[in-house]
Formats: sequence, C-alpha cells, structure tokens
Amino acid sequence: MYNDRVIEEFKNPNNVGEMPDADGVGTVGNASCGDIMKIYLKVEDNIIKDVKFQTFGCAAAIATSSLATTLIKGKTIDEALKVTNKQVVEGLGGLPAQKIHCSVLAEEAIKAAIDDYQSKK
Amino acid sequence: MYNDRVIEEFKNPNNVGEMPDADGVGTVGNASCGDIMKIYLKVEDNIIKDVKFQTFGCAAAIATSSLATTLIKGKTIDEALKVTNKQVVEGLGGLPAQKIHCSVLAEEAIKAAIDDYQSKK
Ligand code: FES
Repeated sequence: MYNDRVIEEFKNPNNVGEMPDADGVGTVGNASCGDIMKIYLKVEDNIIKDVKFQTFGCAAAIATSSLATTLIKGKTIDEALKVTNKQVVEGLGGLPAQKIHCSVLAEEAIKAAIDDYQSKK
Repeated sequence: MYNDRVIEEFKNPNNVGEMPDADGVGTVGNASCGDIMKIYLKVEDNIIKDVKFQTFGCAAAIATSSLATTLIKGKTIDEALKVTNKQVVEGLGGLPAQKIHCSVLAEEAIKAAIDDYQSKK
C-alpha cells in the first residue's frame, strides 16, 4: 500500500522525540482515527533551529511528519508556514488516498506550534 | 492517551513479521483509517504453532495485535476463535474509546486467517 520512499521514511524517521525547553508546542488530533500529533519548535532569531515530533499514529503520519519537520528545520517562521502538506506528500512520492487525512497532521501541528510560539513572544 | 502497558506492548511487540510458508493468511482493512492488518498462521494437528502479523497501523493496532497473537499461539483453532477483542483490550488495561476500531483489526484478521486455513484444508 505504501511506496518504498514512504516505508523508508517511516522506518527511519527524523526528528522523533520530545523537547522539554521548546519555544512553541502544537498538538492536533486526527478526528477520523483518534490519533494525536505533537510538534515542538526551538526558535532563535526567527529561525527554526530545532524541531521534534511525537505521535502514536500510523506509518503515513510518521513518514509525513519526518519529512515535514526536516523541511522546516533551518527555515524562517514565514518560510515554514509556506511548507504545505501537498509538497510533503509529493516529496514522499505520493500516499494512498485514504491516508491523506493522516498526512495533514504534520502541517496542522507545525502551524499550531508556530501559533503557540508567536503567542508566547 | 495510552496507558503504560499499551505503550510497552507497542514499543516491544511480539510476533511481528512475515511468514512465507503460512498455512493461513488473513488480511483486513480498517474502513475508518485505511490501514491494513495481515495475520499469518502456521497450524499443526489443529494447533496454532506460530503466528506473525504485519501492519503499518497505529500504536493501538500494533499493541492489540501483539497481545492477540501471543494469546492464540499454542491454542487449538477452536480456542483461538474464542479469543475476543474485549479480552485483548482488557489484557492491555484498556484503550481510549476512539481507538477501539483499531483494536478489532487483530480479531478480524485472525478469523480471516483461520477461514483461509480451513478453506485450504
Ligand atoms: S490512522 Fe491515525 S494517524 Fe493515520
């Protein structure tokens, strides 16, 4: 059901973990499956210096979060906000249609974490 | 969202893998999330000698499949058919309500694998 690129990213995900001293944290839930995605950001001079994610969700959620967090690392907040779920899914060479609802979790959680960071500033 | 027992079983699942020479294979899909669960059985003298499962599903799917496959290993076909999802969830100390739909995958895939075995006999 998944292509090799997705399975590779799922088996060796980047940026998995917690960040106790995060500058912004975003938590979103997937209404259709009940899974939760949590994204932590470390921001310095408006640049995302570090990012971590945590989920107990499925392979699609893990693969897309791995790639999405890799894409925003080192970017400015404005650049990070422009990274779309579509880009991430394309970067993975596509996902089964029924797993798109899992892939949006990363984008939503990144936006929520940036919101959290900006509201705390 | 998950208790420690579930997280432990998810992080160290038993019986994960493929079985090329399986006597019965059951594949079921989760309508609400699109995930797939596959169960392989090795049967000798009506006893389940070995069982493996594969899924890219979420933590609830993995934890329940790990426990369910452990429970049916060494049992007769009739005993295995009596293992319910309720027993498995109880064995894990409970699951969030919204994740019960993931936990039924194991029971369904076991039944499908037993059906497959019986139809081949
Ligand atoms: S099924 Fe829950 S995140 Fe994919």
